[in-house]
Amino acid sequence: MSWVESANSPDTDFPLQNLPYGVFSNNEETRIGVAIGDQVLDLRACAHYGLLSELPPDAIEACTQESLNDLMAQGSETWSVLRRQLTALLAESADSAVKSRVQPFLVPMRDAQMQLPAHIGDYTDFYASIHHATRVGKLFRPDNPLLPNYKYVPIGYHGRASSIVVSGTAVRRPCGQIKTPTETEPTFGPSRSLDYELEVGIFIGRGNPLGEPIAIDRAEQHIFGLCLVNDWSARDIQSWEYQPLGPFLAKNFATTISPWIVPMGALAPCRVPAAARAEGDPAPLTYLTPSNAARSGIDVTLEVSLQSEKMRQANITPVQLSQGNLRELYWSLDQLLTHHASSGCNLRPGDLLATGTISGPEEGSEGCLLEMKHRAATLKLPNGETRTFLEDGDQVIFRGYCQTPGLPRIGFGECTGKIISSSSTSV
Amino acid sequence: MSWVESANSPDTDFPLQNLPYGVFSNNEETRIGVAIGDQVLDLRACAHYGLLSELPPDAIEACTQESLNDLMAQGSETWSVLRRQLTALLAESADSAVKSRVQPFLVPMRDAQMQLPAHIGDYTDFYASIHHATRVGKLFRPDNPLLPNYKYVPIGYHGRASSIVVSGTAVRRPCGQIKTPTETEPTFGPSRSLDYELEVGIFIGRGNPLGEPIAIDRAEQHIFGLCLVNDWSARDIQSWEYQPLGPFLAKNFATTISPWIVPMGALAPCRVPAAARAEGDPAPLTYLTPSNAARSGIDVTLEVSLQSEKMRQANITPVQLSQGNLRELYWSLDQLLTHHASSGCNLRPGDLLATGTISGPEEGSEGCLLEMKHRAATLKLPNGETRTFLEDGDQVIFRGYCQTPGLPRIGFGECTGKIISSSSTSV
Repeated sequence: MSWVESANSPDTDFPLQNLPYGVFSNNEETRIGVAIGDQVLDLRACAHYGLLSELPPDAIEACTQESLNDLMAQGSETWSVLRRQLTALLAESADSAVKSRVQPFLVPMRDAQMQLPAHIGDYTDFYASIHHATRVGKLFRPDNPLLPNYKYVPIGYHGRASSIVVSGTAVRRPCGQIKTPTETEPTFGPSRSLDYELEVGIFIGRGNPLGEPIAIDRAEQHIFGLCLVNDWSARDIQSWEYQPLGPFLAKNFATTISPWIVPMGALAPCRVPAAARAEGDPAPLTYLTPSNAARSGIDVTLEVSLQSEKMRQANITPVQLSQGNLRELYWSLDQLLTHHASSGCNLRPGDLLATGTISGPEEGSEGCLLEMKHRAATLKLPNGETRTFLEDGDQVIFRGYCQTPGLPRIGFGECTGKIISSSSTSV
Repeated sequence: MSWVESANSPDTDFPLQNLPYGVFSNNEETRIGVAIGDQVLDLRACAHYGLLSELPPDAIEACTQESLNDLMAQGSETWSVLRRQLTALLAESADSAVKSRVQPFLVPMRDAQMQLPAHIGDYTDFYASIHHATRVGKLFRPDNPLLPNYKYVPIGYHGRASSIVVSGTAVRRPCGQIKTPTETEPTFGPSRSLDYELEVGIFIGRGNPLGEPIAIDRAEQHIFGLCLVNDWSARDIQSWEYQPLGPFLAKNFATTISPWIVPMGALAPCRVPAAARAEGDPAPLTYLTPSNAARSGIDVTLEVSLQSEKMRQANITPVQLSQGNLRELYWSLDQLLTHHASSGCNLRPGDLLATGTISGPEEGSEGCLLEMKHRAATLKLPNGETRTFLEDGDQVIFRGYCQTPGLPRIGFGECTGKIISSSSTSV
């Protein structure tokens, strides 16, 4: 329990056991913050006023920056020390002297404008859900949905870092070349098949030098924490452009991330065994085989909701479209990271790796609209509207949380974005 | 002609008419420099000592930084002013007072350690040579080498920015999953099919805001200059991993660029009409059609040479493997840039766009070893060695130059890299 009352509410995403990191602005200053209940603890102020005394000087300096990159570079031992000290500062058991020193550094979350948490040098997107890969594959290749490499290679591709935006940023409908199967030539215009993709992002902490891979059992030490990712996708642009070198303009117009990075320490109670491979599936190659897979998975429930412009006008709350779980990935986060560095590719503090669309096997767990096409009808919204893909004015809301019986909820907050018209210039 | 004697040699890549920008270190300080003959003009010193007086204060400040990003962000009018002033400082006609002020700021090129010229936020690689696409396509799909989108879409994909290194950096042979057609399962190990790819890089100057495309007739204003790029590729890793999302580990272990960025102003005499499209090819869509294609091409001769370890030991000079030309691209540099931003994707100062392998139609103009496989035999080196792909110890050297009759050569300098063993830890 925390002396910050709102952190003890059963409804909060941010109890004392979470303490995610973000970057916020208020009063025209940008600082690192830690979410606690409905408040943000100003980490720069804590550093300046001697409240982070257990950290080495470099790490204290890192806490005063306008992005998390330097703190990420400190490494997992320093993050543990910081987490322990923050817990002590905010716990109900803290001295009243400590409480009165910390209290002035709490900023109400409603007054904090959240920013991108880090300078993201490189962004990589994976394809780690076999349920997503199979369902999408069926649309293109009904007889052979899964390619032969899928169960050996954690498939991934490089994404665009410049267009990553923080939750709440409006997303402009992209234009591109579109060719339907019945047309002989493509035309250039606004996408008519705009989709979301429900993903989880891995922020890299300490990196690796170019040419030096990361062993699978050491992968987690390189993970600073997790966030939610919406990998917006224009399906019509994608289907025409993607061969032979993969998605490009279909994805690079915007990627939205949630502002709070949930540290791996907070997710310790949510660890579960790796998803079981189906009978007959090959074992991962040695470099992707951890010594102990009993904690390779993470049990995070993931939800997608949508509110159309008309629903908003009629005060109809967002409707839930699907619910999935991070634990159902075919490849663990550690496997994604180790595979990425296995060529010798260097990862840097603040790099973002996303899982790819997270879908479960059953109906109702699809992580994007494209996959719902296998349901016979178009999607019905509560006010009678229907959707095949996203319309202008639609707001998409992702939520994620780990709920272990008897423990407070470890939440990710929200990752939201509203679609605006391709021709509109105002946001 | 320049009062810097070496700039007047017919053999130099860096006459007064070139003046490419780079970043160099000597005496433990890192600064922006301009190549002139066998010297580097220290731009920071010029800024500090009032020699860049025609520039606005922001631009003078930009010239004192440790990377070119701020100067790139200034825009094309400022680059023109700077180029004019540098030309005046270094021209034979300069006052002797000017010469004696500038002289102390010349550093011999042999004493300058070249660095990456800019912080590269995002790196994109295209596929703009139809000859390369066709020749490589034939290896995979003999009856249908070119996919239906090729003549409409400037195909591209996002590359890895973190592993871009400057010319001269050793390149470690990558490891990865490899599965030959006859094997039933992949194995993990060093690539046995390591290749180079001869490309030209476009450094973005002023960027565009997210959601705002760049019109084709304004594209060139966003180009700061060009360099050479070696997009090292592990063909065996690539062929197993690339479906369905494109190349990933096969490319992200290293990309080498030449240190000097040749400004568009220097390339003005090298402009030529866009490569003619074949009879029956579709016209580009409107957003990719410039008002005037008479200067869309750039005549830059590009050469690849190789020196093996044994050749080096026997003092045998590098042997030329191929010669191509930038003008033969199917898509112009402006078309690549405009297409990239057409989705609304934001380009930032210092972003790098590479053309993709530049190959011509005839034998001897192939921009990578993979394409030479259509020649019946393996490649013979002058000392009797043969090559199908690169061996450890091989040094690959790219050169590029524009040679207009009656004008000095506008050269790109060299882009080199030597392959080191995957298991070696020393460079």
